[in-house]
Amino acid sequence: MEVLKVASNSNPNKVAGALAGMIREHGRAELQAIGAGAVNQAVKAIAIARGYLAPSGIDLVSIPAFTDVQIDNETRTAIKFIVFPRS
Amino acid sequence: MEVLKVASNSNPNKVAGALAGMIREHGRAELQAIGAGAVNQAVKAIAIARGYLAPSGIDLVSIPAFTDVQIDNETRTAIKFIVFPRS
Repeated sequence: MEVLKVASNSNPNKVAGALAGMIREHGRAELQAIGAGAVNQAVKAIAIARGYLAPSGIDLVSIPAFTDVQIDNETRTAIKFIVFPRS
Repeated sequence: MEVLKVASNSNPNKVAGALAGMIREHGRAELQAIGAGAVNQAVKAIAIARGYLAPSGIDLVSIPAFTDVQIDNETRTAIKFIVFPRS
């Protein structure tokens, strides 16, 4: 499954739209963010996507976790958000 | 229930310890963060608390939401994280 990479200059509404689309299509989604600004935008996107999906009876929850990613041959610690409907 | 207020200079390990304690005592917890730095520390604390509680078979999930808070007679938008065990 595709991972939505979120940056500090990402538009949370657009990320939320993509996130909602992935949830509708795949039943879950994954966001990845590196740095405080990006993590903040990812969290806002999840909060907004909850509003997009709530009218369909979908109550999104998220699990944050640390993950290592390689960027320009350097290892950076990213935050990964797994997002899925509450069972 | 007490709300854990997280700041950009909060220690994520200490917040995670407090969060895990609240989950064990009350079955759920609430974090509040204003600004990207604080949101980032709150997310790290949730990821770390998952590790504290996983050995007890508790699989934490979180719901982020926007909330307005009054600080010095000004209204600021905060992020609220509701954290509870996955059912």
